[in-house]
Amino acid sequence: MKENDKPIPTWKHKLHEVIYEADTPAGKFFDIAILVVIIISVALVMMESVSWMLLKYSWEFYVAEWIITGIFTVEYILRLIAINKPKRYIFSFYGIVDLLSTLPSYIGFIFGGANLLFAIRALRLLRVFRILKVTRYIGESRKLISALKNSKAKILVFLFAVLIICVIAGTLMHLVEGSGAGFDNIPLSIYWCIVTLTTVGFGDIAPVTPLGRLIASLIMITGYGIIAVPTGIVSAEFSKAVDKPINNTQACPNCNEGRHLDDAEFCHNCGYKLNV
Amino acid sequence: MKENDKPIPTWKHKLHEVIYEADTPAGKFFDIAILVVIIISVALVMMESVSWMLLKYSWEFYVAEWIITGIFTVEYILRLIAINKPKRYIFSFYGIVDLLSTLPSYIGFIFGGANLLFAIRALRLLRVFRILKVTRYIGESRKLISALKNSKAKILVFLFAVLIICVIAGTLMHLVEGSGAGFDNIPLSIYWCIVTLTTVGFGDIAPVTPLGRLIASLIMITGYGIIAVPTGIVSAEFSKAVDKPINNTQACPNCNEGRHLDDAEFCHNCGYKLNV
Amino acid sequence: MKENDKPIPTWKHKLHEVIYEADTPAGKFFDIAILVVIIISVALVMMESVSWMLLKYSWEFYVAEWIITGIFTVEYILRLIAINKPKRYIFSFYGIVDLLSTLPSYIGFIFGGANLLFAIRALRLLRVFRILKVTRYIGESRKLISALKNSKAKILVFLFAVLIICVIAGTLMHLVEGSGAGFDNIPLSIYWCIVTLTTVGFGDIAPVTPLGRLIASLIMITGYGIIAVPTGIVSAEFSKAVDKPINNTQACPNCNEGRHLDDAEFCHNCGYKLNV
Amino acid sequence: MKENDKPIPTWKHKLHEVIYEADTPAGKFFDIAILVVIIISVALVMMESVSWMLLKYSWEFYVAEWIITGIFTVEYILRLIAINKPKRYIFSFYGIVDLLSTLPSYIGFIFGGANLLFAIRALRLLRVFRILKVTRYIGESRKLISALKNSKAKILVFLFAVLIICVIAGTLMHLVEGSGAGFDNIPLSIYWCIVTLTTVGFGDIAPVTPLGRLIASLIMITGYGIIAVPTGIVSAEFSKAVDKPINNTQACPNCNEGRHLDDAEFCHNCGYKLNV
Repeated sequence: MKENDKPIPTWKHKLHEVIYEADTPAGKFFDIAILVVIIISVALVMMESVSWMLLKYSWEFYVAEWIITGIFTVEYILRLIAINKPKRYIFSFYGIVDLLSTLPSYIGFIFGGANLLFAIRALRLLRVFRILKVTRYIGESRKLISALKNSKAKILVFLFAVLIICVIAGTLMHLVEGSGAGFDNIPLSIYWCIVTLTTVGFGDIAPVTPLGRLIASLIMITGYGIIAVPTGIVSAEFSKAVDKPINNTQACPNCNEGRHLDDAEFCHNCGYKLNV
Repeated sequence: MKENDKPIPTWKHKLHEVIYEADTPAGKFFDIAILVVIIISVALVMMESVSWMLLKYSWEFYVAEWIITGIFTVEYILRLIAINKPKRYIFSFYGIVDLLSTLPSYIGFIFGGANLLFAIRALRLLRVFRILKVTRYIGESRKLISALKNSKAKILVFLFAVLIICVIAGTLMHLVEGSGAGFDNIPLSIYWCIVTLTTVGFGDIAPVTPLGRLIASLIMITGYGIIAVPTGIVSAEFSKAVDKPINNTQACPNCNEGRHLDDAEFCHNCGYKLNV
Repeated sequence: MKENDKPIPTWKHKLHEVIYEADTPAGKFFDIAILVVIIISVALVMMESVSWMLLKYSWEFYVAEWIITGIFTVEYILRLIAINKPKRYIFSFYGIVDLLSTLPSYIGFIFGGANLLFAIRALRLLRVFRILKVTRYIGESRKLISALKNSKAKILVFLFAVLIICVIAGTLMHLVEGSGAGFDNIPLSIYWCIVTLTTVGFGDIAPVTPLGRLIASLIMITGYGIIAVPTGIVSAEFSKAVDKPINNTQACPNCNEGRHLDDAEFCHNCGYKLNV
Repeated sequence: MKENDKPIPTWKHKLHEVIYEADTPAGKFFDIAILVVIIISVALVMMESVSWMLLKYSWEFYVAEWIITGIFTVEYILRLIAINKPKRYIFSFYGIVDLLSTLPSYIGFIFGGANLLFAIRALRLLRVFRILKVTRYIGESRKLISALKNSKAKILVFLFAVLIICVIAGTLMHLVEGSGAGFDNIPLSIYWCIVTLTTVGFGDIAPVTPLGRLIASLIMITGYGIIAVPTGIVSAEFSKAVDKPINNTQACPNCNEGRHLDDAEFCHNCGYKLNV
């Protein structure tokens, strides 16, 4: 413990454990309850976008919106109270997402609109991975993430090469097909190349000249062949990946650092004593 | 053998071996015969759905329908008789499928309709894996299933991440493209995101604004890149998979448990003596 | 050598080496010359199918057709002469393909039509693998084929499961979407399921009801996920595959058996002395 | 050092290090500056292709075009001066690309047009890999390229087999579907087969007859299944690939050879002393 830290009162310790951790019954219940509210709020935003539902249930949506905003506001305040150094939470990824998913209702009340901010609410769904943490899925997702991290550099090089292929092939297709078939300009042709190389193939734009179709065939075969590259990279990483589960879900009551070793007694980040 | 089991008469033993097992000539013949009837019944349901066929051969379909229902009914009764504890069969997956694929004809006779239940008949095709069991394919399919089982947790985490990506990207596309291009509401936009991320790309809905196309490009490249993840997972599992064929196809005449070790003499589930 | 074999004259031996083998300069030249004629004949069939080309060059096509038919006829007769047991060649895969790609011109001369048989000419392109045999590609293609052979059983089980999924999902989609959206009958719906599960996604048929789109999403995610299975199978096989190049391209002058060990002096099939 | 080489003046040595290498601060700055100009030039070509942008900003495009052409011309001349044997640069891949991306403006000034040559400018983007060379990505991309090189032969055999499948299936589809559904001639049908086999599936052409759809289903399942082959090949190569980073980015000031071992003091190509 660093000497300039004030001692934390017991009720704050308990609140921290309930709100920020998921390995006590109360903590798990809190996390699941919040997740249920998040899922309901996302479902409501979805349903509101369906025009006949908005017309029929506009009052119900209005009420539900304010109830959820209320719950999210209370949760945000509790999170600020429960932690010793609130700044660490406020400027963390989840802190910003939590704030942004509460604000739009208030902003909409004053200015109207603010639809874009509702999209941020979907980001709160990522909290689900917090709950998965205490289940047996944690080991699996850690391996997933570690394998992906190891192959990140290789995959970036690959995506870069794919992008350059698309720029070159797109310019070529624009020159060959011209504006008749929908290849009106180079950015659009590059978009079409991405659609084709990734084997999505919407078909809203498709080549009509023999030469354009020949180039398209080459792009398709390239896309079909080089998908082997990222797959090969990740497969090789997975084969190497070692099984070493870390199940310690303690979060530091002082600085909220969450990655601790199983037998950690003090926070490796700020030296504060963990509630073990 | 548990003491409360009545001794099973010999004819019942023989019937059980013919109906539930596939490693005697008679048993194999019975299984293949039933499979042929199942394939014919599925083909008939298919053909009935083609309107000109239904008009032309409606009488023939009617007769064939009742013949097949008769065969399935007899088979179901035989299965009930041949087993010592019929409840285990009745409430097993195959027992329910077998019942549901016999009922629609009778229900249709009384109420009309009941088309949905005919779809269940296709599930009976799964019996084919019962017959494959005695061939050399069994070892192969066991390895397939075991590798898939081992990678289940990792693949679920992956599919969950894919779903969250689709929810976020779908909300964004709805806001960017609006209702003009077919992104009328968020659920529809999420559907479009799934179509795009999985590289299916029907093209019935496609972005038309430059920003929408940019986001679509990102979704496609993401989908093209992350298909490496499940592939890598399964590849790594297959590399680990060991060759250990289990060819014992004995099913317990008492409780119908089917998974026994090669040298098992008693059922590991109820202790009944196996016909070895 | 078996006693009932007549001694083979030297010119026949030489002819056999030129026509059936590819490891002498003359043999390689003969194979490449025939391959060039095959490629020209396939290109001609392609060009003939383009209507404006047929109208403009119909006389040239007619002449070229008869020249190629002449070359193929002479080649077929030479192959019959060069081998000691012509029946083995006549009833082999290449023998039948060679005959069927020569016949349509003669048949068309007498009856007209016979277009279908022209398609068989494309099969002659497979001869290219005969020439690749002597290059360094042989080792590579052998590994490819051996890995595919080892994974055949597993891939068949997989394709079988895919087919059953398509039958069940197709029946369901027909019931859910009805005839409005193009899911007119079950075979058509199954076709749509295959288009969707394999992530091809033409878009000529696409679901329009919310429930139909939900099921479609599940099919797409399934298709996106299970492509990992064949990939995993083949990857694991390739990792196991050993490098053991076999470069002996001797074909037996008596029975035409083509797979011999590097140091083989007699045909392992009929005991005839090889030209080593 | 070979005796017929003239001694290189110091300023030339310094210029060479700045222009051709990327491991000194000045060299890295030069490379990044040129890359920024390349990206701007590619972006300008893209924007010029959008018709409303060309109309509105035609004067700005004209000026920017000549500024970029000027920079590229000066760069080209500097590259010629900085190297001892200019011919090696002029006839190298990058040398030709650099020349061709400077010429179109001059040619367009004299003759008008020359749009096609602008497409070549996109090829200059490949210089980005030169800069990546000094970062930690170099090791990664080298492994990528080495794994791809090792699997080149196997992948070529695979692509060849895919092409033959497409030719045979395309001929068949033309015969089955005829001109009604868009399968007007064999080359077009082969194009459609490539679209389908690679699981792109534009949907501009789609089969309508039951038999055509059956064949299409087989093509799709084949395409879905055999994508496992290149993936398996590359995965196996990656598993084998060894980690041996080579970070020496010295380029020979005499002959410009760029691949040197870490502790190389003389160019392995011409024996010239490296600036280490």
